[in-house]
Amino acid sequence: MPGLFITLEGGDGVGKTTQSQLLVDWLTEAGHTVVVTREPGGSDLGLELREIVLHRRGDMDPRAEALIYAADRAHHIATVVRPALERGEIVVQDRYIDSSEAYQGAGRVLGSDEVRELSLWATEGLLPDVTVLLDLDPTDSRKRLDSARTRYDRLEAEKQEFHTRVRDAFLERAAKEPERILVVDAAREISEIATAIRERIQNHLPQPA
Amino acid sequence: MPGLFITLEGGDGVGKTTQSQLLVDWLTEAGHTVVVTREPGGSDLGLELREIVLHRRGDMDPRAEALIYAADRAHHIATVVRPALERGEIVVQDRYIDSSEAYQGAGRVLGSDEVRELSLWATEGLLPDVTVLLDLDPTDSRKRLDSARTRYDRLEAEKQEFHTRVRDAFLERAAKEPERILVVDAAREISEIATAIRERIQNHLPQPA
Repeated sequence: MPGLFITLEGGDGVGKTTQSQLLVDWLTEAGHTVVVTREPGGSDLGLELREIVLHRRGDMDPRAEALIYAADRAHHIATVVRPALERGEIVVQDRYIDSSEAYQGAGRVLGSDEVRELSLWATEGLLPDVTVLLDLDPTDSRKRLDSARTRYDRLEAEKQEFHTRVRDAFLERAAKEPERILVVDAAREISEIATAIRERIQNHLPQPA
Repeated sequence: MPGLFITLEGGDGVGKTTQSQLLVDWLTEAGHTVVVTREPGGSDLGLELREIVLHRRGDMDPRAEALIYAADRAHHIATVVRPALERGEIVVQDRYIDSSEAYQGAGRVLGSDEVRELSLWATEGLLPDVTVLLDLDPTDSRKRLDSARTRYDRLEAEKQEFHTRVRDAFLERAAKEPERILVVDAAREISEIATAIRERIQNHLPQPA
Protein backbone atom coordinates (compact mmCIF):
# COMPACT_ATOMS: atom_id res chain seq x y z
CA MET A 1 0.00 0.00 0.00
CA PRO A 2 1.25 3.48 -0.81
CA GLY A 3 0.81 5.06 2.66
CA LEU A 4 2.91 4.76 5.82
CA PHE A 5 1.65 3.04 8.98
CA ILE A 6 3.32 4.21 12.22
CA THR A 7 2.38 2.91 15.68
CA LEU A 8 3.38 4.11 19.14
CA GLU A 9 3.62 1.50 21.85
CA GLY A 10 4.55 1.25 25.52
CA GLY A 11 2.96 1.29 28.97
CA ASP A 12 0.56 3.94 30.21
CA GLY A 13 2.27 7.15 31.29
CA VAL A 14 5.34 6.79 29.03
CA GLY A 15 4.48 9.83 26.89
CA LYS A 16 2.84 8.29 23.79
CA THR A 17 0.31 11.11 23.47
CA THR A 18 2.95 13.84 23.69
CA GLN A 19 5.24 12.20 21.16
CA SER A 20 2.35 11.40 18.82
CA GLN A 21 1.35 15.06 18.79
CA LEU A 22 4.92 16.24 18.11
CA LEU A 23 5.30 13.70 15.32
CA VAL A 24 2.00 14.63 13.72
CA ASP A 25 2.87 18.36 13.83
CA TRP A 26 6.23 17.66 12.19
CA LEU A 27 4.67 15.50 9.47
CA THR A 28 1.86 17.94 8.78
CA GLU A 29 4.25 20.88 8.52
CA ALA A 30 6.22 18.89 5.95
CA GLY A 31 3.07 18.67 3.84
CA HIS A 32 1.92 15.12 4.55
CA THR A 33 -1.68 14.11 5.11
CA VAL A 34 -1.82 12.43 8.50
CA VAL A 35 -4.57 10.36 10.12
CA VAL A 36 -4.19 10.28 13.92
CA THR A 37 -5.96 7.36 15.52
CA ARG A 38 -5.84 4.89 18.38
CA GLU A 39 -6.87 1.48 19.62
CA PRO A 40 -9.13 0.69 21.24
CA GLY A 41 -11.71 3.24 20.11
CA GLY A 42 -10.50 4.45 16.70
CA SER A 43 -13.88 3.88 15.02
CA ASP A 44 -17.55 4.43 15.87
CA LEU A 45 -18.02 0.76 16.79
CA GLY A 46 -14.65 0.88 18.55
CA LEU A 47 -15.78 3.62 20.91
CA GLU A 48 -18.51 1.33 22.22
CA LEU A 49 -16.06 -1.56 22.59
CA ARG A 50 -13.46 0.72 24.26
CA GLU A 51 -15.98 1.74 26.90
CA ILE A 52 -16.72 -1.93 27.61
CA VAL A 53 -13.13 -3.13 27.69
CA LEU A 54 -11.60 -0.25 29.66
CA HIS A 55 -14.34 1.03 31.91
CA ARG A 56 -16.97 -1.64 32.44
CA ARG A 57 -17.51 -2.67 36.06
CA GLY A 58 -17.29 -6.29 37.11
CA ASP A 59 -14.98 -9.13 36.14
CA MET A 60 -14.28 -9.92 32.52
CA ASP A 61 -12.94 -13.25 31.29
CA PRO A 62 -9.37 -12.61 29.99
CA ARG A 63 -10.10 -14.30 26.65
CA ALA A 64 -13.22 -12.16 26.24
CA GLU A 65 -11.03 -9.11 26.86
CA ALA A 66 -8.53 -10.19 24.20
CA LEU A 67 -11.35 -10.91 21.73
CA ILE A 68 -12.99 -7.51 22.25
CA TYR A 69 -9.65 -5.81 21.56
CA ALA A 70 -9.33 -7.93 18.42
CA ALA A 71 -12.89 -7.02 17.31
CA ASP A 72 -12.12 -3.33 17.78
CA ARG A 73 -8.96 -3.82 15.74
CA ALA A 74 -10.61 -5.71 12.88
CA HIS A 75 -13.21 -3.01 12.38
CA HIS A 76 -10.74 -0.15 12.83
CA ILE A 77 -8.20 -1.50 10.36
CA ALA A 78 -10.85 -2.37 7.77
CA THR A 79 -12.77 0.90 7.96
CA VAL A 80 -10.18 3.55 8.98
CA VAL A 81 -6.54 2.47 8.59
CA ARG A 82 -6.52 0.49 5.34
CA PRO A 83 -8.56 3.09 3.44
CA ALA A 84 -6.15 5.83 4.61
CA LEU A 85 -3.08 3.79 3.61
CA GLU A 86 -4.66 3.05 0.24
CA ARG A 87 -5.10 6.80 -0.26
CA GLY A 88 -1.36 7.18 0.39
CA GLU A 89 -1.76 8.90 3.76
CA ILE A 90 0.31 8.53 6.91
CA VAL A 91 -1.42 6.83 9.83
CA VAL A 92 -0.07 7.62 13.32
CA GLN A 93 -1.70 5.22 15.75
CA ASP A 94 -1.62 4.95 19.53
CA ARG A 95 -1.34 1.18 20.34
CA TYR A 96 -1.70 -1.80 18.03
CA ILE A 97 -0.81 -5.49 17.85
CA ASP A 98 2.24 -5.24 20.15
CA SER A 99 0.03 -3.89 22.95
CA SER A 100 -2.26 -6.90 22.69
CA GLU A 101 0.68 -9.27 22.76
CA ALA A 102 2.06 -7.48 25.83
CA TYR A 103 -1.14 -6.81 27.82
CA GLN A 104 -3.32 -9.81 27.01
CA GLY A 105 -0.62 -12.28 25.95
CA ALA A 106 1.89 -11.60 28.75
CA GLY A 107 -0.02 -9.44 31.25
CA ARG A 108 -3.07 -11.74 31.33
CA VAL A 109 -0.87 -14.80 30.65
CA LEU A 110 -2.97 -16.01 27.68
CA GLY A 111 0.17 -16.69 25.62
CA SER A 112 1.89 -14.11 23.44
CA ASP A 113 1.87 -16.21 20.28
CA GLU A 114 -1.83 -17.03 20.48
CA VAL A 115 -2.86 -13.43 21.10
CA ARG A 116 -0.61 -12.29 18.28
CA GLU A 117 -2.19 -14.82 15.90
CA LEU A 118 -5.61 -13.52 16.90
CA SER A 119 -4.62 -9.97 15.93
CA LEU A 120 -3.11 -11.11 12.66
CA TRP A 121 -6.34 -12.93 11.81
CA ALA A 122 -8.38 -9.84 12.74
CA THR A 123 -6.31 -7.57 10.49
CA GLU A 124 -5.50 -10.01 7.67
CA GLY A 125 -1.86 -9.71 8.65
CA LEU A 126 -1.33 -5.95 8.57
CA LEU A 127 1.88 -4.91 10.37
CA PRO A 128 3.10 -1.32 10.85
CA ASP A 129 5.97 0.04 8.74
CA VAL A 130 7.48 1.64 11.83
CA THR A 131 6.75 1.13 15.52
CA VAL A 132 8.10 3.39 18.27
CA LEU A 133 8.33 1.66 21.64
CA LEU A 134 8.60 4.16 24.49
CA ASP A 135 10.25 2.15 27.23
CA LEU A 136 10.07 3.06 30.91
CA ASP A 137 10.38 1.24 34.21
CA PRO A 138 6.79 0.60 35.43
CA THR A 139 7.63 2.22 38.78
CA ASP A 140 8.43 5.47 36.98
CA SER A 141 5.37 5.38 34.73
CA ARG A 142 3.19 4.70 37.77
CA LYS A 143 4.60 7.87 39.40
CA ARG A 144 3.71 9.85 36.28
CA LEU A 145 0.17 8.47 36.26
CA ASP A 146 -0.24 9.17 39.97
CA SER A 147 0.82 12.79 39.56
CA ALA A 148 -1.61 13.17 36.62
CA ARG A 149 -4.43 12.10 39.00
CA THR A 150 -6.60 10.71 36.19
CA ARG A 151 -9.00 7.87 36.96
CA TYR A 152 -7.37 4.47 36.37
CA ASP A 153 -8.90 2.26 33.70
CA ARG A 154 -9.16 -1.53 34.11
CA LEU A 155 -5.64 -2.19 32.86
CA GLU A 156 -3.85 0.70 34.53
CA ALA A 157 -5.35 -0.50 37.81
CA GLU A 158 -3.50 -3.84 37.55
CA LYS A 159 -0.65 -4.45 39.94
CA GLN A 160 3.08 -4.00 39.49
CA GLU A 161 3.89 -7.60 38.37
CA PHE A 162 1.36 -7.27 35.57
CA HIS A 163 3.05 -4.12 34.28
CA THR A 164 6.48 -5.70 34.59
CA ARG A 165 5.32 -8.62 32.42
CA VAL A 166 3.91 -6.14 29.92
CA ARG A 167 7.18 -4.19 29.70
CA ASP A 168 9.23 -7.35 29.30
CA ALA A 169 6.96 -8.55 26.50
CA PHE A 170 7.27 -5.26 24.63
CA LEU A 171 11.07 -5.48 24.84
CA GLU A 172 11.08 -9.12 23.71
CA ARG A 173 9.01 -8.26 20.64
CA ALA A 174 11.32 -5.33 19.87
CA ALA A 175 14.35 -7.63 20.08
CA LYS A 176 12.68 -9.94 17.53
CA GLU A 177 11.87 -7.14 15.07
CA PRO A 178 14.58 -4.48 15.30
CA GLU A 179 13.90 -3.34 11.74
CA ARG A 180 10.29 -2.46 12.53
CA ILE A 181 10.56 -1.40 16.17
CA LEU A 182 12.59 1.53 17.49
CA VAL A 183 13.04 1.37 21.26
CA VAL A 184 13.42 4.78 22.91
CA ASP A 185 14.22 5.39 26.56
CA ALA A 186 11.14 7.30 27.71
CA ALA A 187 13.03 8.81 30.65
CA ARG A 188 14.93 11.07 28.26
CA GLU A 189 13.95 14.68 27.50
CA ILE A 190 10.84 15.10 25.36
CA SER A 191 12.75 16.90 22.61
CA GLU A 192 15.46 14.24 22.48
CA ILE A 193 12.87 11.52 22.11
CA ALA A 194 11.11 13.47 19.35
CA THR A 195 14.40 13.82 17.47
CA ALA A 196 15.14 10.10 17.72
CA ILE A 197 11.69 9.30 16.35
CA ARG A 198 12.03 11.74 13.44
CA GLU A 199 15.40 10.29 12.46
CA ARG A 200 13.91 6.82 12.26
CA ILE A 201 10.84 7.88 10.31
CA GLN A 202 12.68 10.18 7.89
CA ASN A 203 13.81 7.28 5.71
CA HIS A 204 10.33 5.88 5.33
CA LEU A 205 8.62 9.09 4.25
CA PRO A 206 6.95 9.28 0.88
CA GLN A 207 7.47 12.49 -1.08
CA PRO A 208 4.83 15.09 -0.15
CA ALA A 209 2.10 15.43 -2.74
CA MET B 1 -17.27 -32.35 34.17
CA PRO B 2 -20.24 -33.95 35.94
CA GLY B 3 -23.01 -31.93 34.21
CA LEU B 4 -24.52 -32.26 30.75
CA PHE B 5 -24.13 -29.62 28.04
CA ILE B 6 -26.90 -29.59 25.40
CA THR B 7 -27.07 -27.06 22.55
CA LEU B 8 -29.80 -26.32 20.02
CA GLU B 9 -28.73 -25.16 16.59
CA GLY B 10 -30.28 -24.21 13.27
CA GLY B 11 -31.48 -21.17 11.34
CA ASP B 12 -33.85 -18.56 12.69
CA GLY B 13 -37.46 -19.64 12.65
CA VAL B 14 -36.82 -23.41 12.90
CA GLY B 15 -38.38 -23.74 16.36
CA LYS B 16 -35.36 -23.75 18.72
CA THR B 17 -37.18 -21.75 21.40
CA THR B 18 -40.22 -24.04 21.39
CA GLN B 19 -38.14 -27.22 21.55
CA SER B 20 -35.84 -25.77 24.20
CA GLN B 21 -38.84 -25.02 26.42
CA LEU B 22 -40.32 -28.50 25.95
CA LEU B 23 -36.97 -30.10 26.70
CA VAL B 24 -36.41 -27.99 29.81
CA ASP B 25 -39.89 -28.81 31.13
CA TRP B 26 -39.28 -32.52 30.62
CA LEU B 27 -35.88 -32.39 32.33
CA THR B 28 -37.14 -30.29 35.23
CA GLU B 29 -40.10 -32.62 35.81
CA ALA B 30 -37.64 -35.50 35.98
CA GLY B 31 -35.90 -33.73 38.86
CA HIS B 32 -32.85 -32.28 37.10
CA THR B 33 -31.48 -28.82 37.73
CA VAL B 34 -31.43 -27.05 34.39
CA VAL B 35 -29.76 -23.80 33.34
CA VAL B 36 -31.40 -22.31 30.24
CA THR B 37 -29.17 -19.92 28.37
CA ARG B 38 -28.27 -18.60 24.96
CA GLU B 39 -25.60 -17.00 22.81
CA PRO B 40 -25.11 -14.22 22.18
CA GLY B 41 -26.32 -12.57 25.36
CA GLY B 42 -26.19 -15.29 28.04
CA SER B 43 -24.26 -13.11 30.51
CA ASP B 44 -24.36 -9.50 31.70
CA LEU B 45 -21.44 -8.55 29.45
CA GLY B 46 -22.99 -10.66 26.69
CA LEU B 47 -26.21 -8.62 26.70
CA GLU B 48 -24.19 -5.54 25.76
CA LEU B 49 -22.32 -7.44 23.05
CA ARG B 50 -25.55 -8.98 21.74
CA GLU B 51 -27.08 -5.55 21.30
CA ILE B 52 -24.02 -4.45 19.31
CA VAL B 53 -23.73 -7.54 17.13
CA LEU B 54 -27.42 -8.01 16.33
CA HIS B 55 -28.96 -4.55 16.40
CA ARG B 56 -26.30 -1.91 15.84
CA ARG B 57 -26.83 0.32 12.82
CA GLY B 58 -24.15 0.72 10.19
CA ASP B 59 -21.72 -1.69 8.59
CA MET B 60 -19.61 -4.03 10.66
CA ASP B 61 -16.43 -5.70 9.46
CA PRO B 62 -17.18 -9.48 9.22
CA ARG B 63 -14.09 -10.37 11.29
CA ALA B 64 -15.16 -7.89 13.96
CA GLU B 65 -18.55 -9.58 14.01
CA ALA B 66 -16.98 -13.03 14.44
CA LEU B 67 -14.70 -11.71 17.21
CA ILE B 68 -17.57 -10.11 19.14
CA TYR B 69 -19.44 -13.43 19.05
CA ALA B 70 -16.29 -15.15 20.30
CA ALA B 71 -15.88 -12.58 23.11
CA ASP B 72 -19.48 -13.13 24.19
CA ARG B 73 -18.83 -16.87 24.15
CA ALA B 74 -15.59 -16.71 26.15
CA HIS B 75 -17.21 -14.75 28.96
CA HIS B 76 -20.42 -16.79 28.90
CA ILE B 77 -18.70 -20.17 29.05
CA ALA B 78 -16.27 -19.04 31.77
CA THR B 79 -18.82 -17.37 34.02
CA VAL B 80 -22.13 -19.22 33.38
CA VAL B 81 -21.77 -22.58 31.60
CA ARG B 82 -18.62 -24.11 33.13
CA PRO B 83 -19.68 -23.28 36.70
CA ALA B 84 -23.09 -24.92 36.08
CA LEU B 85 -21.50 -28.03 34.54
CA GLU B 86 -19.07 -28.23 37.45
CA ARG B 87 -22.04 -28.19 39.84
CA GLY B 88 -23.43 -31.17 37.89
CA GLU B 89 -26.32 -29.27 36.32
CA ILE B 90 -27.77 -29.58 32.83
CA VAL B 91 -27.18 -26.61 30.53
CA VAL B 92 -29.66 -26.16 27.64
CA GLN B 93 -28.26 -23.51 25.34
CA ASP B 94 -29.67 -21.76 22.27
CA ARG B 95 -26.79 -21.53 19.75
CA TYR B 96 -23.08 -22.22 20.26
CA ILE B 97 -19.95 -22.98 18.24
CA ASP B 98 -21.80 -24.59 15.29
CA SER B 99 -23.74 -21.34 14.73
CA SER B 100 -20.50 -19.36 14.47
CA GLU B 101 -19.05 -21.85 12.03
CA ALA B 102 -22.23 -21.65 9.93
CA TYR B 103 -23.03 -17.91 10.13
CA GLN B 104 -19.59 -16.30 10.23
CA GLY B 105 -17.50 -19.09 8.71
CA ALA B 106 -19.83 -20.00 5.82
CA GLY B 107 -22.42 -17.19 5.74
CA ARG B 108 -19.80 -14.41 5.90
CA VAL B 109 -17.28 -16.59 4.01
CA LEU B 110 -14.53 -16.12 6.61
CA GLY B 111 -13.67 -19.83 6.52
CA SER B 112 -15.35 -22.46 8.67
CA ASP B 113 -12.14 -23.88 10.10
CA GLU B 114 -10.76 -20.52 11.17
CA VAL B 115 -13.97 -19.42 12.83
CA ARG B 116 -14.22 -22.77 14.57
CA GLU B 117 -10.64 -22.45 15.87
CA LEU B 118 -11.49 -19.00 17.20
CA SER B 119 -14.40 -20.42 19.20
CA LEU B 120 -12.31 -23.28 20.51
CA TRP B 121 -9.67 -20.80 21.69
CA ALA B 122 -12.38 -18.65 23.32
CA THR B 123 -13.82 -21.59 25.25
CA GLU B 124 -10.64 -23.59 25.89
CA GLY B 125 -12.06 -26.33 23.73
CA LEU B 126 -15.43 -26.95 25.36
CA LEU B 127 -17.79 -28.93 23.09
CA PRO B 128 -21.40 -29.88 23.92
CA ASP B 129 -22.27 -33.43 24.95
CA VAL B 130 -25.33 -33.35 22.68
CA THR B 131 -26.32 -30.92 19.94
CA VAL B 132 -29.76 -30.86 18.33
CA LEU B 133 -29.76 -29.40 14.82
CA LEU B 134 -33.24 -28.36 13.70
CA ASP B 135 -32.98 -28.44 9.94
CA LEU B 136 -35.33 -26.55 7.63
CA ASP B 137 -35.22 -25.20 4.10
CA PRO B 138 -34.44 -21.45 4.41
CA THR B 139 -37.48 -20.63 2.27
CA ASP B 140 -39.72 -22.28 4.85
CA SER B 141 -38.04 -20.67 7.84
CA ARG B 142 -38.33 -17.28 6.13
CA LYS B 143 -42.08 -17.85 5.81
CA ARG B 144 -42.30 -18.60 9.52
CA LEU B 145 -40.34 -15.45 10.39
CA ASP B 146 -42.47 -13.34 8.08
CA SER B 147 -45.69 -14.56 9.66
CA ALA B 148 -44.24 -13.85 13.13
CA ARG B 149 -43.73 -10.22 12.04
CA THR B 150 -40.87 -9.61 14.45
CA ARG B 151 -38.24 -7.04 13.56
CA TYR B 152 -35.34 -8.65 11.67
CA ASP B 153 -31.92 -8.54 13.30
CA ARG B 154 -28.71 -7.98 11.28
CA LEU B 155 -28.31 -11.67 10.40
CA GLU B 156 -31.94 -12.55 9.75
CA ALA B 157 -32.00 -9.64 7.30
CA GLU B 158 -29.34 -11.28 5.11
CA LYS B 159 -30.44 -12.63 1.75
CA GLN B 160 -31.39 -16.12 0.71
CA GLU B 161 -27.92 -17.26 -0.51
CA PHE B 162 -26.48 -16.40 2.90
CA HIS B 163 -29.04 -18.57 4.66
CA THR B 164 -28.50 -21.41 2.18
CA ARG B 165 -24.74 -21.36 2.95
CA VAL B 166 -25.57 -21.36 6.66
CA ARG B 167 -27.86 -24.39 6.34
CA ASP B 168 -25.33 -26.32 4.26
CA ALA B 169 -22.59 -25.62 6.81
CA PHE B 170 -24.75 -26.89 9.68
CA LEU B 171 -25.43 -30.10 7.77
CA GLU B 172 -21.75 -30.55 6.90
CA ARG B 173 -20.75 -30.22 10.54
CA ALA B 174 -23.46 -32.70 11.54
CA ALA B 175 -22.15 -35.19 8.98
CA LYS B 176 -18.68 -34.89 10.57
CA GLU B 177 -19.91 -35.41 14.12
CA PRO B 178 -22.92 -37.75 14.05
CA GLU B 179 -22.24 -38.89 17.61
CA ARG B 180 -22.62 -35.38 18.99
CA ILE B 181 -25.16 -33.90 16.58
CA LEU B 182 -28.73 -35.13 16.10
CA VAL B 183 -30.30 -33.72 12.94
CA VAL B 184 -34.08 -33.36 13.15
CA ASP B 185 -36.36 -32.34 10.30
CA ALA B 186 -37.89 -29.13 11.65
CA ALA B 187 -40.88 -29.43 9.31
CA ARG B 188 -42.21 -32.32 11.41
CA GLU B 189 -44.85 -31.94 14.13
CA ILE B 190 -43.66 -30.21 17.31
CA SER B 191 -44.47 -33.25 19.45
CA GLU B 192 -42.63 -35.63 17.11
CA ILE B 193 -39.53 -33.45 17.23
CA ALA B 194 -39.70 -33.27 21.01
CA THR B 195 -39.86 -37.06 21.20
CA ALA B 196 -36.87 -37.50 18.92
CA ILE B 197 -34.85 -35.10 21.08
CA ARG B 198 -35.82 -36.86 24.32
CA GLU B 199 -34.83 -40.23 22.93
CA ARG B 200 -31.39 -38.94 22.08
CA ILE B 201 -30.83 -37.19 25.39
CA GLN B 202 -32.18 -39.99 27.54
CA ASN B 203 -28.94 -41.97 27.34
CA HIS B 204 -26.82 -39.05 28.47
CA LEU B 205 -28.81 -38.14 31.56
CA PRO B 206 -27.19 -38.29 34.97
CA GLN B 207 -29.25 -39.77 37.77
CA PRO B 208 -31.39 -37.06 39.43
CA ALA B 209 -30.00 -35.89 42.79
